[in-house]
Amino acid sequence: MSKLFMFEKPLGMRDTLPELYETKKRLRTEMADEMKQWGYQMVETPTVEYYDTIGAASAILDQQLFKLMDSQGYTLVLRPDMTAPIARLVSSSLKNEAYPIRLGYHSHLFRAQQHDGGRPAEFEQVGAELIGDGTVSADAETIALMIESLKRTGLEQFKLAIGHVGFVDALLIDIVGNKERAEVLRRYLYEKNYVGFRSHVKGLQLSSIDKKRLEGLLKLRGGSDLFNDAEKLVESAQGKAALTELRELWAVLEDYGLSSFITIDLNLVLHMSYYTGTVFEVYSQELGVPLGSGGRYDELLQQFNRPAQAIGFGVRLDLLAEAIGQSAPHERRSCVIFSRERRAEAIQKARDLRTEGEIVVLQDLAGITNVDQMSEEYDEIVYVIGKSKQGGQADE
Amino acid sequence: MSKLFMFEKPLGMRDTLPELYETKKRLRTEMADEMKQWGYQMVETPTVEYYDTIGAASAILDQQLFKLMDSQGYTLVLRPDMTAPIARLVSSSLKNEAYPIRLGYHSHLFRAQQHDGGRPAEFEQVGAELIGDGTVSADAETIALMIESLKRTGLEQFKLAIGHVGFVDALLIDIVGNKERAEVLRRYLYEKNYVGFRSHVKGLQLSSIDKKRLEGLLKLRGGSDLFNDAEKLVESAQGKAALTELRELWAVLEDYGLSSFITIDLNLVLHMSYYTGTVFEVYSQELGVPLGSGGRYDELLQQFNRPAQAIGFGVRLDLLAEAIGQSAPHERRSCVIFSRERRAEAIQKARDLRTEGEIVVLQDLAGITNVDQMSEEYDEIVYVIGKSKQGGQADE
Repeated sequence: MSKLFMFEKPLGMRDTLPELYETKKRLRTEMADEMKQWGYQMVETPTVEYYDTIGAASAILDQQLFKLMDSQGYTLVLRPDMTAPIARLVSSSLKNEAYPIRLGYHSHLFRAQQHDGGRPAEFEQVGAELIGDGTVSADAETIALMIESLKRTGLEQFKLAIGHVGFVDALLIDIVGNKERAEVLRRYLYEKNYVGFRSHVKGLQLSSIDKKRLEGLLKLRGGSDLFNDAEKLVESAQGKAALTELRELWAVLEDYGLSSFITIDLNLVLHMSYYTGTVFEVYSQELGVPLGSGGRYDELLQQFNRPAQAIGFGVRLDLLAEAIGQSAPHERRSCVIFSRERRAEAIQKARDLRTEGEIVVLQDLAGITNVDQMSEEYDEIVYVIGKSKQGGQADE
Repeated sequence: MSKLFMFEKPLGMRDTLPELYETKKRLRTEMADEMKQWGYQMVETPTVEYYDTIGAASAILDQQLFKLMDSQGYTLVLRPDMTAPIARLVSSSLKNEAYPIRLGYHSHLFRAQQHDGGRPAEFEQVGAELIGDGTVSADAETIALMIESLKRTGLEQFKLAIGHVGFVDALLIDIVGNKERAEVLRRYLYEKNYVGFRSHVKGLQLSSIDKKRLEGLLKLRGGSDLFNDAEKLVESAQGKAALTELRELWAVLEDYGLSSFITIDLNLVLHMSYYTGTVFEVYSQELGVPLGSGGRYDELLQQFNRPAQAIGFGVRLDLLAEAIGQSAPHERRSCVIFSRERRAEAIQKARDLRTEGEIVVLQDLAGITNVDQMSEEYDEIVYVIGKSKQGGQADE
């Protein structure tokens, strides 16, 4: 083995040590338990899929895909997101189940990194999809479930920003006239590059009223009071319909008692190109990046021959763990150290303690290299050493 | 998207539907809980590793590796086993922890399939590694932990066959004289092709006594009484030392009260080439293939510059689930179906039921395509429909 590779992991790949492992396990379990109570059933899909099935539908940049070749020469990818695999699953293995279908998952996702910039090439995502229900109730349920499952993990300071692809698209096309020109502006919004957006708008050949409308879009962030301002900016029926949906969504989230977690953000644009309606992102106070997102994708399923309106969300477990901090409580661990002649007694002692629910390491003295260092790791050491086989009494 | 790929998964890749998901989750949790009580700490390593680090050390046939290339042209592999990644982890991220180190994992492993023979290309393995302890106590602990964690899942009818690489190697070389000739016989044993073994032995230029010794090896399967027969077959110190170890191991497993689960199988040869001492396989009554295996690998860690004696085991969760059967208990699920004007009331109803611990789907009537088919899925349907907003009473 070359020295170069002896201890190395590929770019962006990480080990998970016990403390972080326990934190992630707790978070994953809390979220999955909440999803389960809302009737979401957990599924798993393969880590490796055909490029033509999943890679192309996933809307992840091609250079971010881990690609490989199977023995027949077909291109495979490591699953870059879960929405496309679940669409495939719903259209094949679950094709006989009636809509609406509620599914949950926790899965590793993969994004190839070109630089060592600290971004993970593999991360775990917990999420849910509600497929075959186009009502605003479904939008509200998805958002409410995301909030409730995050609350259950103990995350306290967070906000969910809600936007609508239909509104942004309608407004931009209303003003700039065609898709190509709208796309340039959309890209600034996706990158949250508002300075770039403003300077691009300045250079456009538009009336000063239209330029004001475009700049007005950037201000559409806040509570439900901004719907009136938004209504003045947009003219098309599509834009007005999007606002009507959002107003109703807000009302339902009030019924859920969750509107204090919500911000309306009408210039929110997410990178997944398959979103068609409501979109949302979750921000915690602790992080500069969203720790989860989601949205409505009413056109993806028809690519898999089983058309359905659908909406879902995903939370990145690595970012959630970062926001919450390593929160696994200290667990008491003891160690029974024995010498060979009293091994049977030590085995019994360890078994008794474990039966009482304790975490117990059973350690042959002959297998220890450094007793002091070993002892430091435990809350209690029980020595079962020496000739005194009499009774079950351990020397301490 | 081409029709060919619309619903397809790569060779050997599978979806996991809710029922199997819950079964696997239960099995994984039971095993991990047992390992935790024995002081094993859970870790995770990346799905993707450098070929030079892990692929080469893993002892999995090259053609069974999923290989891919990173952006710098280095070859990567999808993790084919967990022993090599844990050796890397122990030598890098955990290099300051004193031996012995006890680690557990549940991880997806990958083996490329050339044919559609029903073998999975991806499966989940739950396992444990005890690193830095060369005592027979460590061998016994590993085997006892494997048995106890399987018992905890509810598996009842199973046997663990124990062999010793040192014994087989010593006996074969004793008789046939060199490694190359021993390797031919070893391969028959690995393939459990005893007919081939016997016919190969017949053709060897050996005394009839030596031929009888080789055939005698095949009979060394049973209880502790076969140690005396084995002692007569082997001459070298290495072979006798192996038997001494196994006798002690048997005695410790009697102290654990587990010898009824054990068969000694002195012609057991496993495919992992890094095993150096005790090896073992678990068979359940239900399956024709072992559902787990393990062994001592005292030379692997030195490849990672942190020499240590070590032993571990892994259980395949897919096979364990097959042996146990889909065992998730039926969980009561109810569905609250509402019409829009009573949505707030329905949200409150669902919340109340969930607070009581129930699994409750909350469903907007307008989002249902087929009420009858939907109703069949639930133990109870609560209708919150129509104009009667008065009170919290639901129509049933």
